[in-house]
Amino acid sequence: MTSVRPAYRALDTQSLRTWLATQPAVCELLGGAAPGWSIREVGDGNLNLVFIVEGTVGAVCVKQALPYVRAAGPSWPMTLERAFYENAYYLEVAPHVGGLVPAVYHYDPELYCIVMECLSPHIILRHGLMAGRQYPRLANHLGEYVARACFFTSDLARPFERKLENMALFAGNEALVRISVDLIFTDPYCESPRNRHTSPQLDTLVARLRADADLKVAAARFGQKFLNDAQALVHGDLHSGSVMVSETDSRVIDPEFAFYGPIGFDLGAFFGNLLLSWYSQPGHASAADDRAAYRDWILEQTCIFWDSFRTRFLALWADAARGDAFPARMFARTEDAAALQAARAAFLDTLFADMLGFAACKMIRRILGFAHVIDFESIRNPALRAACEAGALSMARLLLTQPQQFRSMSDVVEAVPRMQWRGE
Amino acid sequence: MTSVRPAYRALDTQSLRTWLATQPAVCELLGGAAPGWSIREVGDGNLNLVFIVEGTVGAVCVKQALPYVRAAGPSWPMTLERAFYENAYYLEVAPHVGGLVPAVYHYDPELYCIVMECLSPHIILRHGLMAGRQYPRLANHLGEYVARACFFTSDLARPFERKLENMALFAGNEALVRISVDLIFTDPYCESPRNRHTSPQLDTLVARLRADADLKVAAARFGQKFLNDAQALVHGDLHSGSVMVSETDSRVIDPEFAFYGPIGFDLGAFFGNLLLSWYSQPGHASAADDRAAYRDWILEQTCIFWDSFRTRFLALWADAARGDAFPARMFARTEDAAALQAARAAFLDTLFADMLGFAACKMIRRILGFAHVIDFESIRNPALRAACEAGALSMARLLLTQPQQFRSMSDVVEAVPRMQWRGE
Repeated sequence: MTSVRPAYRALDTQSLRTWLATQPAVCELLGGAAPGWSIREVGDGNLNLVFIVEGTVGAVCVKQALPYVRAAGPSWPMTLERAFYENAYYLEVAPHVGGLVPAVYHYDPELYCIVMECLSPHIILRHGLMAGRQYPRLANHLGEYVARACFFTSDLARPFERKLENMALFAGNEALVRISVDLIFTDPYCESPRNRHTSPQLDTLVARLRADADLKVAAARFGQKFLNDAQALVHGDLHSGSVMVSETDSRVIDPEFAFYGPIGFDLGAFFGNLLLSWYSQPGHASAADDRAAYRDWILEQTCIFWDSFRTRFLALWADAARGDAFPARMFARTEDAAALQAARAAFLDTLFADMLGFAACKMIRRILGFAHVIDFESIRNPALRAACEAGALSMARLLLTQPQQFRSMSDVVEAVPRMQWRGE
Repeated sequence: MTSVRPAYRALDTQSLRTWLATQPAVCELLGGAAPGWSIREVGDGNLNLVFIVEGTVGAVCVKQALPYVRAAGPSWPMTLERAFYENAYYLEVAPHVGGLVPAVYHYDPELYCIVMECLSPHIILRHGLMAGRQYPRLANHLGEYVARACFFTSDLARPFERKLENMALFAGNEALVRISVDLIFTDPYCESPRNRHTSPQLDTLVARLRADADLKVAAARFGQKFLNDAQALVHGDLHSGSVMVSETDSRVIDPEFAFYGPIGFDLGAFFGNLLLSWYSQPGHASAADDRAAYRDWILEQTCIFWDSFRTRFLALWADAARGDAFPARMFARTEDAAALQAARAAFLDTLFADMLGFAACKMIRRILGFAHVIDFESIRNPALRAACEAGALSMARLLLTQPQQFRSMSDVVEAVPRMQWRGE
């Protein structure tokens, strides 16, 4: 399955130091002599080694793929090639998203290792959301990010040949797509040894979800969309653990799940993880802060995120439509403008519906499936955790089974506080 | 653009004879000595050389790609690789569609040449339709063909990895996809030197179509679907010139436009060309036969085609769903059956809508665009030809701009005779 190339070996602080010392550009960025560099492994994700290397002048972050799923151990092998696709995604979208991704300094195809900008004082957004911190520019940044990354890799922006060639390239990332297909769209709706949930508190609710044929059909429709709708190069895992934030800056990281898929999948990942954060807030409340105001802030961010995405995507479509979908030369007459504008708005409506559906799928898999989120996992009291999770599940179920109730963001904002668990 | 390999040369009857004589399997099929074989070039298509070779025992058909568009001449170069994709399509679908494609005996990658079954007494379906002949099993065969070819190459039938790998392969067929994008979905709706139409009779109608922003938006939506909806490996050019028929047999040929796209594109190509034939019939009427009964037969075939496709696709989905879309293990409970059945019916409804929209796009491009069809072209009287074409255009326009009027085949059957030209 995974064929490890001869030069590959998992790095440790010593072998990393030796290897980086052979890279003149990196040495210059770091400054000072290699023996003096501070190197520490900080990876807390599911799949990779992550090192922070600090020299006398600067610092870099080094991310190396491991040939297995770190969270599961060597018994679950995983292709190293994901590092290649992560780098390929950065190469493709970086020219379009400006400073919203880290700078990549070097990619090593034998070590499956990316040397990139060390972001400081950034932290993982998920940690910031758990701590109740507000990031005034975050939602705008992320809306802009998805709009630009997806528009410029779609058939709206450029000749379809570019997309076909890139699709052929990213088709090789099938091992990571397999994870999404199984862990997001299938396992959570079946009995599977990879699943777990807060038990026994959620047992009844989980059994009811797995017996809800309408819910499963809706989830399966989004699973089919995930495989069929090759709209743009998507990040593929754009949750709040894939965003690093400071007070003023936001950066998207970890695009190793990248493939050509539906734009709503990236929108829904970010949106759904904001909703998960909303539902987890009671678990992080204290006597001093009941998190009620913070919850309002989160809901406001979901609106800003969507509005920012929609506005920017439409602006790009008006200004930079040089692709084969809705080709500009078909709509050159002044009289075409109104119909074209209506068609664009209708397309954005389909992305809105996709965002909500994919968000719901992402919410469910984080509560019933293999990989959970620390927003909930860190809530020690299982009854409280279960109550938070049950609210999120109810909202996800409503989004999937009653999509006609959600025509705009105000419908979402109205429904979220209603969908809280009030006991069996 | 086209890089011709050293061994490539366009074959003539003499060089073909010499080359085939080096192929033992083909010699055995033909029988007799090479100098005695009868060889004639019979190609009447836009892109290729086609030879019929007859020996003392049997016959073969040899199709060779030319490095330019035959209908336009060497000034419009065209990649030879399309022969590779034609062969790749046959390899992929032949195991699933039984006898509905010709047997392929040999593919030569340097000559871009396919040696295949010589179909006899078959003729091109389009010629049969112009002659007013009925083929009792045709519509059933074609419904079965599209159902089987598309189902088995979709995510409903098999793991998505197979599709991704094949998508990477067929992504190389971009030169042929480019032809479809330009000639079907763009040029007909703009002024283009490649366009032509029956003039001056259709001038007003054509100008009105190109000024119809709602029509253009609808066509552009199907153009976007064509590029985005990677549902299955589609033939890509399934009109009545790509089907050979006898009284009892039907075979699909010429899949060089193959790519991963929407199932409705193949459905619509065949369906739309049946409608074109219906609208062309007054041009082929005689004192002895006004073609009224034949028109009824054609309309009946559109219904049989759709019903046959739908029934077989649903049967395959019930029996052979081993793919990642709507995975069987998610719907293992008896209680899931009703919801799953409803979801399948809803999916077939989307294919029906796609069939009608793509059919309309195909009808329009054959009347306003570059490549016309002999159903109309052979009508000598330009006023009569224009009247036939105008009816087809009106129907196509209705299908694109009023899709809500077409919920079932009976809506189509009712509308077709209504949409006839009664003068400006």
